[in-house]
Amino acid sequence: MGTTETLRKLLDGRYPETRDRVRSWLSEPGNAPADDLELEEHRARVLAWAQELSSQGDTAIGYPVEYGGKGSPARSVTAFETLAMGDLSLLVKCGVQFGLFGGAILHLGTGRHHERYLRDVASLELPGCFAMTETGHGSNVQALGTTASYDAATEEFVVHTPHEAARKDYIGNAARDGRMAVVFAQLIAGGEQRGVHALLVPIRDDDGASLPGVRLEDCGPKLGLNGVDNGRIWFDHVRVPRENLLDRYATVAADGTYFSPIENPTKRFFTMLGTLIQGRVSVSGASISAAKVALTLAVRHALVRRQFGPPGEEEALLMDYRTHQRRLLPALATTYALSFAQQRLVDELDVVFTTDADDRLRRQLETLAAGVKSVATWHASDTIQRCREACGGAGYLRASRFAALKADTDVFTTFEGDNTVLLQLAAKNLLTDYKDAFGELDPLGLAQFVAGQAWGVLTERTPLRKLVDGGDLRSRDTQLDLFRWRHEHLLESAARRLKRGLDSGRDPFSVLVDCQDHVLEAARSWVDLVVLESFPIDPAVDALRSLYALHTIEAARGYYLEHGRLSGGRSKEVVKTVNALCAELRPDVGALVDAFGVPENVLTPSEPVTA
Amino acid sequence: MGTTETLRKLLDGRYPETRDRVRSWLSEPGNAPADDLELEEHRARVLAWAQELSSQGDTAIGYPVEYGGKGSPARSVTAFETLAMGDLSLLVKCGVQFGLFGGAILHLGTGRHHERYLRDVASLELPGCFAMTETGHGSNVQALGTTASYDAATEEFVVHTPHEAARKDYIGNAARDGRMAVVFAQLIAGGEQRGVHALLVPIRDDDGASLPGVRLEDCGPKLGLNGVDNGRIWFDHVRVPRENLLDRYATVAADGTYFSPIENPTKRFFTMLGTLIQGRVSVSGASISAAKVALTLAVRHALVRRQFGPPGEEEALLMDYRTHQRRLLPALATTYALSFAQQRLVDELDVVFTTDADDRLRRQLETLAAGVKSVATWHASDTIQRCREACGGAGYLRASRFAALKADTDVFTTFEGDNTVLLQLAAKNLLTDYKDAFGELDPLGLAQFVAGQAWGVLTERTPLRKLVDGGDLRSRDTQLDLFRWRHEHLLESAARRLKRGLDSGRDPFSVLVDCQDHVLEAARSWVDLVVLESFPIDPAVDALRSLYALHTIEAARGYYLEHGRLSGGRSKEVVKTVNALCAELRPDVGALVDAFGVPENVLTPSEPVTA
Repeated sequence: MGTTETLRKLLDGRYPETRDRVRSWLSEPGNAPADDLELEEHRARVLAWAQELSSQGDTAIGYPVEYGGKGSPARSVTAFETLAMGDLSLLVKCGVQFGLFGGAILHLGTGRHHERYLRDVASLELPGCFAMTETGHGSNVQALGTTASYDAATEEFVVHTPHEAARKDYIGNAARDGRMAVVFAQLIAGGEQRGVHALLVPIRDDDGASLPGVRLEDCGPKLGLNGVDNGRIWFDHVRVPRENLLDRYATVAADGTYFSPIENPTKRFFTMLGTLIQGRVSVSGASISAAKVALTLAVRHALVRRQFGPPGEEEALLMDYRTHQRRLLPALATTYALSFAQQRLVDELDVVFTTDADDRLRRQLETLAAGVKSVATWHASDTIQRCREACGGAGYLRASRFAALKADTDVFTTFEGDNTVLLQLAAKNLLTDYKDAFGELDPLGLAQFVAGQAWGVLTERTPLRKLVDGGDLRSRDTQLDLFRWRHEHLLESAARRLKRGLDSGRDPFSVLVDCQDHVLEAARSWVDLVVLESFPIDPAVDALRSLYALHTIEAARGYYLEHGRLSGGRSKEVVKTVNALCAELRPDVGALVDAFGVPENVLTPSEPVTA
Repeated sequence: MGTTETLRKLLDGRYPETRDRVRSWLSEPGNAPADDLELEEHRARVLAWAQELSSQGDTAIGYPVEYGGKGSPARSVTAFETLAMGDLSLLVKCGVQFGLFGGAILHLGTGRHHERYLRDVASLELPGCFAMTETGHGSNVQALGTTASYDAATEEFVVHTPHEAARKDYIGNAARDGRMAVVFAQLIAGGEQRGVHALLVPIRDDDGASLPGVRLEDCGPKLGLNGVDNGRIWFDHVRVPRENLLDRYATVAADGTYFSPIENPTKRFFTMLGTLIQGRVSVSGASISAAKVALTLAVRHALVRRQFGPPGEEEALLMDYRTHQRRLLPALATTYALSFAQQRLVDELDVVFTTDADDRLRRQLETLAAGVKSVATWHASDTIQRCREACGGAGYLRASRFAALKADTDVFTTFEGDNTVLLQLAAKNLLTDYKDAFGELDPLGLAQFVAGQAWGVLTERTPLRKLVDGGDLRSRDTQLDLFRWRHEHLLESAARRLKRGLDSGRDPFSVLVDCQDHVLEAARSWVDLVVLESFPIDPAVDALRSLYALHTIEAARGYYLEHGRLSGGRSKEVVKTVNALCAELRPDVGALVDAFGVPENVLTPSEPVTA
């Protein structure tokens, strides 16, 4: 069928062969998601799968060619995204090992770390942990409690957990498989606190016993992702050699002299964190894939399941009810939209990591990743839930895959950056850019921005144009105009409110807290706009784009109406057009999910039984 | 603290001692929710708990005094609601055994069934199933496939599963414990189809082996509620004696003569189903309790957890961020609101089942139960999810209770009536009532209503008043006016649209499908109104009522603005007032969740560890 093929091409983007390779692995017998294993069995299965993938060379795609890789972050993320259609514990295990652990060595370490470790990481000879989060600090990484004090006498760092809240927590690979950890700790060198840095710390010997001074504990069963062995780590004055510091952004000389090419400690910290952005981009892509699996299940169910109907006739298909169309089709259109936005995000990631990208491009990537990750993971949670409900009792059986999809993706909204915190990060960057337009650069973000001075220009700008209430609602230009207007208006008014608060002499933190919901909405509206812009200009996805756009406008119509940007009549027209688009897309809905290319193997709902 | 006590009194309503009795049972060691058991262990534990409750006489509260009960449906539902703070598998097991199985015998059977079975049901000597749902039919019960054909030669009914889609599915107690089932089947007597009726069919012998002609299968692990043994049942010409027909609404004489006091088969069917409404009311109450548990966990976490903050100072409590207040406080206010609405629902249930209530009261109860159950169970799903996210990684551990809360309550949105179908039922009744106001009674519901004729009057009514854009947003009267306006406007315009569609000669089913989203919104707005009305007039809950009301208006402000019922400025004032109310309630938030009276025993999050 032509439609499916055209759509598949658009969805698969630049790397169809990478996707097909993973699809074909998932389709092999034995590689379907596990839904029936005990904790330890599941962990063992996941490890074995990861080993198989690594033996096929599929786990180093993002690493440099000299270490067995293909030097392609974009293909690496694309493969990861596709793997997310299968067992999500396997996905996260791979993310921890090859993405976070290996990625930290790659991006924060230097040549000798790469030379010594990267091959073993890719081959899983050296299973490792990314020990950043602590019980007391998840989002605010700058305030971590673990310390790494340099002892010039022995040329070692002493890694220590000073109090209970500073234990490393929820660390993947820590409970069972990890042999080494990248530990994020407050570096103390030359008698001074130098901020958070990362070091390599061995945690288990070759027999799997924990090393002296290292205490390990299993986090035990989790809500989901039980094939991943998350654990806790305490360090009791554990000594590691000086060269274990991942020293791309800072070095400590034998005598304890600290040097970093980035003088400002906050800028240094955010630069280091910034290199780890691939994890966030990967989770974003994975969540979109999970939504595709859920939609494929729910749409196919709705195309065979009948319930109620006109008297005396065959019962109607669920898919023919408007409520059911409303439930599934906007979510389907949004999933397409986010797929295209994800492609753009992956392209930007590739540019930043394979070219000599400047700060502006890096910050642009950071903003986009933060925004798309938040929106995509919330979308996945919501979509999987609505799809489960749309399948009724059948969707509640563990065999239906909804159990795993729901449970496993749940944490996507809070790991690799809590969504609320990420939207704030995006907002901070957008406000900084906004200020840039007036000639001020403040890379340190919102707090400083709020505390800044030269905002006078803001109030002198001409008021935002009010567009006339016209234009075809189905045209891309009209849709973009509406999205842009909402974003500009939200951002400008947020900036004004912040400025007003500061001008009145209130303390910056409380000014910021007061505007927090407004600031978040500004970021959200920007993501909406970027997502809309990402749609390819292709008649095959015109109706999907309109449905995404108008459904988004419908949800925000209170804002448009409040500000006179939509009239009451026009707003009602938006609602009607959403309904009309659902009806128009109804005949193609099977093709629309087929185009996702979810391997049949991973779709194992209880068979729909019909009379 | 005065606030907690006052609020607890309001929340506990008429039956504080019933609630406290269950709270005290839940607080006993060994009665905390199970989060670490294998499937069969969990099932065994749940059965043992249910036996313990029954040995204490707590499972027959709703049954007549002569069978060991207390004749109080209200107290029964209240006890059930409170039990929902604990292990939800136990709750659903009790619901299946004492509520659905026992309730069907009580309400559809007659004296000899009560005499013979009710004591054994209450004591769990006779574990039983409520075998209504089939693989092919969940919502549309009228179209079930199982048959029960009367054989006058032997004075027996022959119960049969004619095809695969007619197997009974997801039936609680069927996989392991059930000895007998109330089976819903198409009755065939005197050579004629008589519609769906219920009969008692033994399914297992005393040793637990399935009886001849009965095939039983375990549904296996589910997304949640794994302490309940759901299963499938097939009948192969199973014979049961004539007296096994639950014959309150229809009898079959020895010679096969069928008689029912309710002549109209559809009316008879809905009357029979109507008596089973307690299950729906119970699930509604249970979901509100589950939301209370989640909110207690998340609010307490937010009162100890600090993250980020003003430079150089202690980090700020999560609860002091506006985004966090926005996340939790409207959900908290809505939980209060739904608690009060649930009290009203339980009161109406009690009146209908303990007095000689007329059809009007019964239909009113049906509408209210359908509406509140939908809104409450969706609210619970949403609230539990937002609370999980608000607890970050700690909320993702299985020990945190969020795993069980999420998984176990998930099915509440689709069992005891799929929420979408229930909102349609509510809408049907509201539209029928609306028509009644013009002198037409059509108890058969929307389809017939749509097909009806005498709607002419509708178009002659005066247009809905447009109230002036005034009144204190925090006053109950202003809030009620706004809620009423929205509901009346939605209902009247839905009725007009339906009429227009019919007048144009289109077929009624497609007219209905076209208006489905509108009709559902009308029902939803009615539930909102009823919930708002249910708030006690007491200064202790004034701010909570305003927050619930204005947050609801905020969410629907697009509609108000579209129809000129709110001005842009007024709408912005609503948003601001929601923020202000969050800030005002902030100091009391600990007391607000303490007032829920969730036993400490069931709150077992991983201890918040602080520095």
